[in-house]
Amino acid sequence: MSDLEAWFEEKQENFLGIRYRVDKVLYSQQTPFQRVDVIENSNFGPILINDGLVNVTLKDEFVYHEMITHVAAYSHPKPKRALVIGGGDGGTARELARHKSIESIQVIEIDEGVVNACKEFLPQCAVGFDHPKVNLTIGDGIKFVEQAKKDNQKYDIIIVDSTDPIGPGEGLFNRSFYENVAQLCDDNTIVISQAEGPWFNEKVQRELLAILREIFNITQIYNYHNISYPTGTWSFSFASQSVHPLRNMDLERIKSDDFEFNYYSSEIHRSAFALPSFMKKNLAGLLKD
Amino acid sequence: MSDLEAWFEEKQENFLGIRYRVDKVLYSQQTPFQRVDVIENSNFGPILINDGLVNVTLKDEFVYHEMITHVAAYSHPKPKRALVIGGGDGGTARELARHKSIESIQVIEIDEGVVNACKEFLPQCAVGFDHPKVNLTIGDGIKFVEQAKKDNQKYDIIIVDSTDPIGPGEGLFNRSFYENVAQLCDDNTIVISQAEGPWFNEKVQRELLAILREIFNITQIYNYHNISYPTGTWSFSFASQSVHPLRNMDLERIKSDDFEFNYYSSEIHRSAFALPSFMKKNLAGLLKD
Repeated sequence: MSDLEAWFEEKQENFLGIRYRVDKVLYSQQTPFQRVDVIENSNFGPILINDGLVNVTLKDEFVYHEMITHVAAYSHPKPKRALVIGGGDGGTARELARHKSIESIQVIEIDEGVVNACKEFLPQCAVGFDHPKVNLTIGDGIKFVEQAKKDNQKYDIIIVDSTDPIGPGEGLFNRSFYENVAQLCDDNTIVISQAEGPWFNEKVQRELLAILREIFNITQIYNYHNISYPTGTWSFSFASQSVHPLRNMDLERIKSDDFEFNYYSSEIHRSAFALPSFMKKNLAGLLKD
Repeated sequence: MSDLEAWFEEKQENFLGIRYRVDKVLYSQQTPFQRVDVIENSNFGPILINDGLVNVTLKDEFVYHEMITHVAAYSHPKPKRALVIGGGDGGTARELARHKSIESIQVIEIDEGVVNACKEFLPQCAVGFDHPKVNLTIGDGIKFVEQAKKDNQKYDIIIVDSTDPIGPGEGLFNRSFYENVAQLCDDNTIVISQAEGPWFNEKVQRELLAILREIFNITQIYNYHNISYPTGTWSFSFASQSVHPLRNMDLERIKSDDFEFNYYSSEIHRSAFALPSFMKKNLAGLLKD
């Protein structure tokens, strides 16, 4: 090790920066969709960075992946078919595959570069693609949903595991996209979306929920707390025509599965929907019970 | 504004750095106890920095101050006398003073430099010192507790509103300190302590809870989520001989007070004790119900 140190910095506009020491650059590619980097950090392990924004770290990926999947899986009465839009690291598929009732998990990821980087440097996540229940398709999630609508496909859990609403993730925050998603739903289907955070992205949260509440009878939002997204407090939206994340939480199944989790539990499931007062004020009128 | 930019960086060991743009340096003093700086940031407002560690920002101070006070105030059946050890910015006194039953709030802060900086640049917090119920003493909290023990003083709520266990806060993480604190308690007294965070300070959390559980019948820990402490997820410990933060939460009083909060609510009170699984594992055997 020389005296020189390399650091990667993620900027929040121009008032805040989060810097990770770069012990090694493991991967760097300009794909057709974005710049994909993987760096090694002594505390976080490998860190996947898309267009300069931290996407996944080995240290805390379990928070995101347990929370984007198990809240839906334990709210739906018996999920069989799951669709993951995005999710190119594999962690969401990995967690869904643990559920016995789930028979098929279709992942539609636009950027093969992300999948390749994760298979090589974040195998803890990418192992999800090896599961026999999981089918990975490289392609455009928006077009996939349009086609699935024509084919009259239905899913029990639909997870929009997207990046921020810039770059390849932009079209996943639109009303027309969710109108198509709704056509893949029956009454019990649950739609979970990456919903940014309440501190610096409150406008995006309002816009997303405003779209969802026009289309679904139940629209909720819940928080998780990781350590690699700015502020640490981030959210997923929960939308369904008839399933409620608290009223329908299947405590018996959580107990009988008795999975080992690093973050999720029935208590965390419930408490994630207890929103800080400032967030409730920001989202006033946008949640539907 | 010139092209030059100044940034302040808080380092987490040498693997992570959090940088705030410095629009203006408002205050810089070497006190007998620590270096005290206040900088202005366009998003966070004034930021108080002690010995290079962010202590309070205008933007998110409500999270810390609501959570260090109201969980105790609404768990104790009728708190009258409060003691705050540390708390030199005034925010903890400000929140305690809102409770009608609380008649006196004694703040013992070691560093007058912190108080002066906050009176000038964080008056939103320091306004707490202006309340007629509040008595501010500049002095050593450890000695204050020793003397209060000799004087047979009792308090209903004792809040250890300390910095990290280095510098002036170090002696506030010791067993002998808590043995003296316990002498200021009756059965219903609640002791709340700044308890670091579960991601990078898990050893400190174990050590603190190991001390508390030797002295108190009920020892719990709860999380809050701000945006200016590394990772955002931080904790307070809760200790008492007979009061439990969930069994004794006074929902009726929360409703009848109907205070406007920016973070706290009865739902947040409950959910703050739902610990992520990795944290429960780290603290296995150290909590007492």
